Amino acid sequence: MISVTIMGFGNVGRHLYAAFHNASEVDRVQVYNRSKVMHNPEEAVIISKLSELQPTDAYFIALPDDHIADFSEKLPFHNGLVAHTSGSVPLTKLSGHNRRAVFYPLQSFSKDTRVDFNAIPICVEAENESDLKMLSKLGQCISTKVVEINSEDRGKLHLAAVFVNNFVNHLYTISEALLNEHSLDFDLLKPLIEETADKISRVSPYDAQTGPARRNDQKTIEKHMDLLTNDRYRALYTTFTKSIQETYGKEL
Amino acid sequence: MISVTIMGFGNVGRHLYAAFHNASEVDRVQVYNRSKVMHNPEEAVIISKLSELQPTDAYFIALPDDHIADFSEKLPFHNGLVAHTSGSVPLTKLSGHNRRAVFYPLQSFSKDTRVDFNAIPICVEAENESDLKMLSKLGQCISTKVVEINSEDRGKLHLAAVFVNNFVNHLYTISEALLNEHSLDFDLLKPLIEETADKISRVSPYDAQTGPARRNDQKTIEKHMDLLTNDRYRALYTTFTKSIQETYGKEL
Repeated sequence: MISVTIMGFGNVGRHLYAAFHNASEVDRVQVYNRSKVMHNPEEAVIISKLSELQPTDAYFIALPDDHIADFSEKLPFHNGLVAHTSGSVPLTKLSGHNRRAVFYPLQSFSKDTRVDFNAIPICVEAENESDLKMLSKLGQCISTKVVEINSEDRGKLHLAAVFVNNFVNHLYTISEALLNEHSLDFDLLKPLIEETADKISRVSPYDAQTGPARRNDQKTIEKHMDLLTNDRYRALYTTFTKSIQETYGKEL
Repeated sequence: MISVTIMGFGNVGRHLYAAFHNASEVDRVQVYNRSKVMHNPEEAVIISKLSELQPTDAYFIALPDDHIADFSEKLPFHNGLVAHTSGSVPLTKLSGHNRRAVFYPLQSFSKDTRVDFNAIPICVEAENESDLKMLSKLGQCISTKVVEINSEDRGKLHLAAVFVNNFVNHLYTISEALLNEHSLDFDLLKPLIEETADKISRVSPYDAQTGPARRNDQKTIEKHMDLLTNDRYRALYTTFTKSIQETYGKEL
């Protein structure tokens, strides 16, 4: 049995807590959250004072990136295994008072949606081999995909994740706004959105590229630019068109 | 029984032909293709001379956008129902010798993947009510989502589709390239890509937005810009960050 403490009960903390529910080898001892938790359907043992923390085998910090370093300095124990759960914060930002580690689930979590952790890659990093083993074991309790990744590579993974998650979502937002301007239903695009995401499981995105920029269809590009009145949308359309044309430039 | 001819046997033509296979009310009489068709697993009746065309209730032009107008002028019959299948070509580009119409399946088709037409929106347009009815009926034979959309709105829909399909796919391409630079496996991002696409069926993309630009996390943005050495990627990162910050600006 591995005993764990979750510190921070926002999106990541809650999902992690819920995921460990089904792991028979994991004992979720306490949840620390500075402010009062209103929603606690699983009846987690929640404390709001660091002095009330009980010793456990591992502590997970699930706080905003900016708070991780300071918070780790404040922990009232030494030499415990402390893992943060962030994609972009290096391991070395954690206080050296404890055994530093990272346990980063590569997924975007929403408040109200239960997540199937099984397919989510868990990126683990630790300062010593035995901690890495324990974190890998904890990862394997909830996911089939546990990978060792150092802070430098994790930073690059997180950057790539910004492109496929944050930026992609912003494109969805823009297309919804474009359709709403003309009272067209965004639902019409959902099958296309799904297929675009599905397709890359069968073919590399490089090969899957289609569209006016890819085939250098200047007439359609101009027609689209005429339709776009918002400067932000025009800037994105132009930047993408240029980037796609340069990516495939040599084949034209 | 409605008899149809498919003209052009590329991605769209093939998928349309295959989709009509299961429609008991549709008789696929001929396929016209200028060049010899090497792959014909369904044993379609393929002709390569327009003079061999037999009369049918409807003719579908599934050719590249640039060829539609000229091709429609060359058709050796008058007053037939001729529908093109393009998102961005106005109905009026078709020759006036025939009854002009549009039958646009809003999806991205790949060569080797069978598509479930059932969920694909079919956008129909015609010059007269009875043709619109026939096209709607044909659409309903293969899809549960048939919508009447005029050329102007279809153009906007197609523009929005470029954002969620072509541009999104280019973001996938960039993130794969970013990971390959560092020998990281693109598969790690696939669950996140899927969830990003799935999430908008539960919450609007506007509300789903997360990430450093959304929370104005200047430190992470700078870290990311330092990691990006390719000018194209930097241009996209900057344009997106600016657009996201402006979209949510008033809330900061």
